[in-house]
Amino acid sequence: MNAVEGQARAVHGDTSRNALEDLTRLVTDDLARVNALILQHMQSPVALIPQLAGYILAAGGKRLRPVLTLASARLCGGDGGRSPSLAASVELIHTATLLHDDVVDESDRRRGRASANAVFGNESSVLVGDFLFSRAFELMTSDGSIDVLRILSRASAVIAEGEVLQLATANDLATTEASYLRVIESKTAALFAAACEVGAYAAERPDLGPPLAVFGRALGLAFQIVDDVLDYVASEARLGKAIGDDFRDGKVTLPVILAYQRGSEAERAFWRRCIEDQELEDADLDHAVGLLRQHRALDQSFEVARGFAAQAKAALLPLPISPYRTALSAVADFCVDRDF
Amino acid sequence: MNAVEGQARAVHGDTSRNALEDLTRLVTDDLARVNALILQHMQSPVALIPQLAGYILAAGGKRLRPVLTLASARLCGGDGGRSPSLAASVELIHTATLLHDDVVDESDRRRGRASANAVFGNESSVLVGDFLFSRAFELMTSDGSIDVLRILSRASAVIAEGEVLQLATANDLATTEASYLRVIESKTAALFAAACEVGAYAAERPDLGPPLAVFGRALGLAFQIVDDVLDYVASEARLGKAIGDDFRDGKVTLPVILAYQRGSEAERAFWRRCIEDQELEDADLDHAVGLLRQHRALDQSFEVARGFAAQAKAALLPLPISPYRTALSAVADFCVDRDF
Repeated sequence: MNAVEGQARAVHGDTSRNALEDLTRLVTDDLARVNALILQHMQSPVALIPQLAGYILAAGGKRLRPVLTLASARLCGGDGGRSPSLAASVELIHTATLLHDDVVDESDRRRGRASANAVFGNESSVLVGDFLFSRAFELMTSDGSIDVLRILSRASAVIAEGEVLQLATANDLATTEASYLRVIESKTAALFAAACEVGAYAAERPDLGPPLAVFGRALGLAFQIVDDVLDYVASEARLGKAIGDDFRDGKVTLPVILAYQRGSEAERAFWRRCIEDQELEDADLDHAVGLLRQHRALDQSFEVARGFAAQAKAALLPLPISPYRTALSAVADFCVDRDF
Repeated sequence: MNAVEGQARAVHGDTSRNALEDLTRLVTDDLARVNALILQHMQSPVALIPQLAGYILAAGGKRLRPVLTLASARLCGGDGGRSPSLAASVELIHTATLLHDDVVDESDRRRGRASANAVFGNESSVLVGDFLFSRAFELMTSDGSIDVLRILSRASAVIAEGEVLQLATANDLATTEASYLRVIESKTAALFAAACEVGAYAAERPDLGPPLAVFGRALGLAFQIVDDVLDYVASEARLGKAIGDDFRDGKVTLPVILAYQRGSEAERAFWRRCIEDQELEDADLDHAVGLLRQHRALDQSFEVARGFAAQAKAALLPLPISPYRTALSAVADFCVDRDF
């Protein structure tokens, strides 16, 4: 087992292996309310809407973002009165972006099964995404906090910006590490940050919003970098998507940027053919993984992710000591060591 | 010239011909602020976003919805302080839905030129639509009214519902007049209603919201029915889209429903081939227009629209007498008599 696989197999043992489950367990009751609210807000007399929304929401996912909102609220001393509706809004926004992402990426798989657009068509996925997005904002208005609406509408705009930027940098090996970080900061970390920050508002502790936003942002960066690494090393059963999806889509992620920088002229020609010209042969993915390992691009990407996880943990230090803080801190380690 | 063409050529003369221009003139200064706010809120460091947003927003359109918000606010005694940001939000939401509609309908023309998706691609249109939609909500949070956010987020969800329902009834000649009205009530009238209603909130006269919502809803229904009629009789230069688009897309609009109900068995077979099976020949559009005329389906659709315009005008009666009320009332007539 090499370093990368050791990483993917969670050498940190059972503690970090189950950190997300531990955190989720701490907010079980709140999360049950979140799930009920999501179910309620995806209803419509237009039958196709709950069908499609139910399809993608039932596919599960880890409910990571709403759990962050719930735990952040509890950490700030909230009683769980307001946080479930905000957590449900966060998950509805996330689900809407997944529906649109899969249309944009022409994905046919999501979480180990056919994507919603593959089953229901692109048109329905676009429109049901719009519906869920609108419902998320409607749900927030019932909470009544303009601050929360401002934070989550801004995050939504930033996500869309990140997705457009990703589209613009796709298939472009001139993408720098800084551009890559800007994309993932927008498309992933912004919603993690907002999910945590609104937890402070749910607990009526807006003063604790800033450190929680810093925590969420760093956690989101770590999470996305690891996601991009796992695209080259995880198995479909674990990640819920086929290995090499990003490679086939010509996405320029951190491992590719590092390997390309360090590659010989011949290697660079290989990356250009695969990523920029999208002329792929059967053995190319294996060869790409070989180059990533040879240049330690996967290990070093994990290192970068580990740095962000450390930032995330540090951001929690000014917050009250509690089981929630401990569990959130463990999730930061887990995001780097996970194999899902 | 037959009755329908007389209708389309604005037999009511110059007064109703220019009613929208008259109304727009009444709110010129407020509208200048709306345009500045729109320009400001479509900016992004990601260059493609202002490029694409500028392309669709520069294509113009009549700014009908924001003008309704501005005039409603003035009618309720508002000083134009808050209404421009709400009117800009309404137009941003409308623009986002246009971008997504063109992707869903696979349209390549909009307002007489290539649609944004035809120029920039479907992916970018989906994502920039999401961006503008988020920005609309962000702009509303700066206004600070939860009521406004509730009204417009609900309208947005209803629009998406209407679009999904339209997708589900496309190519289905069993669609009833009631289903058709439900679709256009959702996809068009809901935003007209919300645009007018939030004007009352901008003027801090929420008590005047309900009659304005009734006015906007009826106006939107009249507007959409006429739009659907003009698809069969207007010229591209005037309507800004090719005649027969709905026919080629197999959309079951009111004229088609009426002609199908009244058609012989042979005529019904013709409609089924064209609308349900989408097997179109060159002469089919002319034949369809002939059948619509023969069964007075266009005239009768205008009659239905005229009924909604009358409803709209009646809804204004409890509101204060003012030049704004007179101009809004004239716009209701104009929406039925327009030829754009």
